[in-house]
Amino acid sequence: MNENPDCIFCRIVAGEIPSFKLLEDDRVLSFMDINPANEGHCLVIPKAHAPNLFESDDGSLAAAAAACRRVADAVRRTLDPPGISLMQANGPAAGQSVFHFHFHVIPRRADDDLLFNWEPRPGDLDAIGRLAERIRASLRQEPAPQKTMRLE
Amino acid sequence: MNENPDCIFCRIVAGEIPSFKLLEDDRVLSFMDINPANEGHCLVIPKAHAPNLFESDDGSLAAAAAACRRVADAVRRTLDPPGISLMQANGPAAGQSVFHFHFHVIPRRADDDLLFNWEPRPGDLDAIGRLAERIRASLRQEPAPQKTMRLE
Repeated sequence: MNENPDCIFCRIVAGEIPSFKLLEDDRVLSFMDINPANEGHCLVIPKAHAPNLFESDDGSLAAAAAACRRVADAVRRTLDPPGISLMQANGPAAGQSVFHFHFHVIPRRADDDLLFNWEPRPGDLDAIGRLAERIRASLRQEPAPQKTMRLE
Repeated sequence: MNENPDCIFCRIVAGEIPSFKLLEDDRVLSFMDINPANEGHCLVIPKAHAPNLFESDDGSLAAAAAACRRVADAVRRTLDPPGISLMQANGPAAGQSVFHFHFHVIPRRADDDLLFNWEPRPGDLDAIGRLAERIRASLRQEPAPQKTMRLE
């Protein structure tokens, strides 16, 4: 199965590119990230090709989320890190470089505080309330069918 | 329903603390983060209390992941950001401050490159391969039942 010959993750699924596999079933594959942000950094992908979260399907998401739990728990039992972050990027501005939906499972170190953490600062509640109304309005609208999303 | 009276998210689910709700069903709730990392930052939580990914259940994870897709897509259609990141933190070292499992849905700006992005650098393939074997061994082991996890 290689749904998309230009996609490096589809080629890993197909076995055309080697990987350090951790877990595999009909729907998902987990393997080591060979450009790790920290020791133990691994990836979880649905086998079905979707470029991002928006074009993913709920079955693939459910399988990927369950695999994240299993893999993160195994990483926790293996490396005993003081934290684990899941990251999932959509669009180059979010740091996405492979356009096949994936979760990063990233063990955290005590001294990497600046890697993904931010300092919570109170927002403007009036502005947040107005924005919530706009997002609710978008949720009520059925999105138009799109095969090519802006964030690809 | 307030499963855990000491948990701020359980109190939001129970309506004891107000929130800007975006989406709600029997299993999940999404609402605005009032300490936003960026404009449009919102949260998706399972209603059932679990402190982190490791203690979550696959049904809650599936519902939360599907809600993330819907909410992120509505945020995308509302704000048209150049990227959206999902973040999920386990343990204080990962920046977790509320110990009720949650996904952050964070619109990205072109000028926030340092917020969560990292520069991929090749790792030591031999070390990664050895670590993969250790994680696979952990996956083969059934974890001992634990009600209190180290990362809480």
